[in-house]
Amino acid sequence: MARTRFIFSGAGGQGVITAAVILGEAAALHEGLNAVQAQSYGPEARGGASRAELIISDDVINFPRVNNANVLVCLTQEAYNRYYPHIRPGGLLVTDSKLVTPLSKVDARQVPLPLFKTAMETVGEPVTLNICMLGAVVAITGIVKNGSVEKVIETRIPGEFLEVNRKAFSLGYELGLPHAG
Amino acid sequence: MARTRFIFSGAGGQGVITAAVILGEAAALHEGLNAVQAQSYGPEARGGASRAELIISDDVINFPRVNNANVLVCLTQEAYNRYYPHIRPGGLLVTDSKLVTPLSKVDARQVPLPLFKTAMETVGEPVTLNICMLGAVVAITGIVKNGSVEKVIETRIPGEFLEVNRKAFSLGYELGLPHAG
Repeated sequence: MARTRFIFSGAGGQGVITAAVILGEAAALHEGLNAVQAQSYGPEARGGASRAELIISDDVINFPRVNNANVLVCLTQEAYNRYYPHIRPGGLLVTDSKLVTPLSKVDARQVPLPLFKTAMETVGEPVTLNICMLGAVVAITGIVKNGSVEKVIETRIPGEFLEVNRKAFSLGYELGLPHAG
Repeated sequence: MARTRFIFSGAGGQGVITAAVILGEAAALHEGLNAVQAQSYGPEARGGASRAELIISDDVINFPRVNNANVLVCLTQEAYNRYYPHIRPGGLLVTDSKLVTPLSKVDARQVPLPLFKTAMETVGEPVTLNICMLGAVVAITGIVKNGSVEKVIETRIPGEFLEVNRKAFSLGYELGLPHAG
């Protein structure tokens, strides 16, 4: 698998850090891979943008930052406008189809998905958007097994919110599957 | 202030990553500082240890990893045994006084505090241990104002758990204050 570099971006409060932490733990705890997860906060954080980075590799990870991602997720237009230049040519760019209008000039496989709509209407809990997104990313990339992520979700998400997040993950996975490979 | 490097360590599920994320956001969003927060997962994660790193600086942060910390927190004996060599000489080493027996040979200011007891007995919610710890660290180091952290706690911790975490932060702050400076 070599090395896959992710950037999950959106607005503060959308839970992109939690999504990155969960995926990193799934890879390391249940699939024997190495992972480094990081976020940096500078002036841009004060504008309300949020960005979480994750590297997953079967080898040692020396430099833990992601400048250019194989997989970029943008959950807001602001995040898209800021981060689309950080996708590697030919990479995967997942956006929310309601919240983001993609540009045609980007050299990437752009996959807009109704993540927010699913979290809002089908799950009925907008806070599950991040986990719905994670389901889609796992389905499209095949980076880890969905069961590995579900195990981490069970340990990381507190009681009251577990069931809706399980549902969001599963629905996101379904949304992503037709775009796999 | 130059640069302060933190390592928060403990067992998986103790919430050391959440504590580091909250402190990083408090520094960046409410005090105009830069912060980088990271965790790496390798073979040691599969042993159940958890380690979150945080750098806070008033300057640009180029290399985001912490090899040796100015402030090290250990919430389990296993974490202590593994990470005490990573404290800088003369640094601050905060431990839980019930869960960790410190070594005398460590060149650091060691501050054992009844964090677990406070979370368990006074707050009545053991899951607030991480936020109780954060209160103590903020009081001892003065790295940010307690109000800055409280603002982030309000946005990051979901409804049901907010009040107990507020209480845990406040009690941890009280525990730390006599050791400030």
